[in-house]
Amino acid sequence: MKLILDAMGGDDAPNAIVEGAIAAQRDFDDCELVLVGRQEAVQAAFEKNKCKALPERVSILDAREVIEMTDDPANAFRRKKDSSMTVGLNLLKAGQGDAFISAGSTGALLSASTLLVRRAKGIRRAAVAPVIPTGCGGSVLIDGGTNAECTPEYLVQFAFMGSVYAQYILGREKPRVGLLNIGAEPGKGDTLRQETYALLTRLAEEGSLNFVGNVESREAVFGQADVIVADGFSGNILLKAMEGTAMYFTKLLKEAFQSSTKAKLGYLLSRGGMSDMKRIMDYREVGGSCILGIQKPIIKAHGASDGKAIYYAIRQARNAVACNVCGIIADHAAQLSGAGN
Amino acid sequence: MKLILDAMGGDDAPNAIVEGAIAAQRDFDDCELVLVGRQEAVQAAFEKNKCKALPERVSILDAREVIEMTDDPANAFRRKKDSSMTVGLNLLKAGQGDAFISAGSTGALLSASTLLVRRAKGIRRAAVAPVIPTGCGGSVLIDGGTNAECTPEYLVQFAFMGSVYAQYILGREKPRVGLLNIGAEPGKGDTLRQETYALLTRLAEEGSLNFVGNVESREAVFGQADVIVADGFSGNILLKAMEGTAMYFTKLLKEAFQSSTKAKLGYLLSRGGMSDMKRIMDYREVGGSCILGIQKPIIKAHGASDGKAIYYAIRQARNAVACNVCGIIADHAAQLSGAGN
Repeated sequence: MKLILDAMGGDDAPNAIVEGAIAAQRDFDDCELVLVGRQEAVQAAFEKNKCKALPERVSILDAREVIEMTDDPANAFRRKKDSSMTVGLNLLKAGQGDAFISAGSTGALLSASTLLVRRAKGIRRAAVAPVIPTGCGGSVLIDGGTNAECTPEYLVQFAFMGSVYAQYILGREKPRVGLLNIGAEPGKGDTLRQETYALLTRLAEEGSLNFVGNVESREAVFGQADVIVADGFSGNILLKAMEGTAMYFTKLLKEAFQSSTKAKLGYLLSRGGMSDMKRIMDYREVGGSCILGIQKPIIKAHGASDGKAIYYAIRQARNAVACNVCGIIADHAAQLSGAGN
Repeated sequence: MKLILDAMGGDDAPNAIVEGAIAAQRDFDDCELVLVGRQEAVQAAFEKNKCKALPERVSILDAREVIEMTDDPANAFRRKKDSSMTVGLNLLKAGQGDAFISAGSTGALLSASTLLVRRAKGIRRAAVAPVIPTGCGGSVLIDGGTNAECTPEYLVQFAFMGSVYAQYILGREKPRVGLLNIGAEPGKGDTLRQETYALLTRLAEEGSLNFVGNVESREAVFGQADVIVADGFSGNILLKAMEGTAMYFTKLLKEAFQSSTKAKLGYLLSRGGMSDMKRIMDYREVGGSCILGIQKPIIKAHGASDGKAIYYAIRQARNAVACNVCGIIADHAAQLSGAGN
């Protein structure tokens, strides 16, 4: 398969992207990697990483422009036709690649993906679907922040897409789909939640979905659902509250371990046991977030990605292609577009 | 001052309420405490806590019914006229007490407070306003879960009420009021956020409020605002995500410390430095959540409150009375009801 990388997206581009590509090239011999970006900058990053010649199965496609975080996300890809993102997505659209990975602006990537590569037929909205580190080994959160305003129909489609992702990429047999809400009982929450609850219940009765009911954010963190269905507003509040609390807790813990010589020694003795905790809290191993609902796999890597994070984002793209997640979603689309009407 | 306690509300009622009352009676000699509930059960709890006679300034008011979590919150207080909650709130309404504290059903307490004690004139909605453990020593989150559907006018009123609370109870001089949103820049979020942002900006320009703009949940956790303004849906998602993540992190940390003899020893050496962390994460010291917008102070204590948590909830009620929070909010109400129209 051929994976296309936006070599200019992210805080540490192109270096992080090149580092990730070198590691991925070593491990995944079924992948060809195309790095799109300023030829000389990408080339220099390879040289910096001790690759005088490009590794096998790796190529660079020159694109002169870069979409910046300050560009208007809705139009950036049109205004900058020779940007790494636009050129890369056009390549994907033209069938000259199987997936696209970018650590650039989420908004720009979403607009460009929707307007260039297009949504799967019948899908009303694409949504970013991060896998968040919950107690069940990770849950798909959909929508993680794309569509601030949603209808019950969107949420039902998110439920389906998230369920496909959890089944095929996370390997959950009958993914438990939960509706993010502010109470566990049916009838809780606002009108959007009440209407969505009714639709998801009907689909569960038909056997099309394993809907486990409302999930509060506290229980979501502990892993009560494999798929957490939310509008992009509350989904993003959940995502960043977890991230913030974990960061804040880590900061307090570090301060505690540095508070005295005794505590420092305590850290040295106990840190071995903490590797699991660190691994769970390490966003890099999650890879990126898949943008679901687009005809081909698009992976949004974290803007602060380093080489390791890009490596995992490439692995995630490879899995999405291998499992044909987008094809399966497209096959469901007829069914999806019927629900919620 | 006279504080009224719902002796029958909460998982460990009446014992936790009696324990908290005994401790508060010792520390706050300016307070009279009235415990409302089944006379014999409350009496027995005092005896169990080594008080054969009731302590000074403590009395019991008999009420035969108890509002259960399974009762319909909207009507429970009417159907159970002789419940501890209804009797207690009627006492408050009649001017025979200065504040009411309950660890019972939030929904029932909110309905009963609104319909018996009534909202301050001009206030459209009452809202529960927990103080959440953020990096700035705690922030007022308003609404924490009461009104799932809100208008810009409600949110502006929440901003005002939260600001009064942060100033007079938390002692913040010019409380920084932030709008919970999914991006920091103006124009982010849904229509509700965009409209509220414009109204809050106007009030800030008039000097009525120290509005610091949008706050994402990650930054909210780190204490970027003293007051976090949210609709009850996303506010509750934030609140419980922080709670869940802190609990989950604590669980992982415990497992890490128990993973080997070396790690156990490490814990013994470092635990001294962790007391601050534990204190920050201990919901009990926060007390309860004030329901703001009602004519008199109503404190909702956590359903799982133990004696210590009830003690702090009593202290919080005492502060609210001493600082005349409800009076100040009522004075602002004319101004408030003008905003957002």
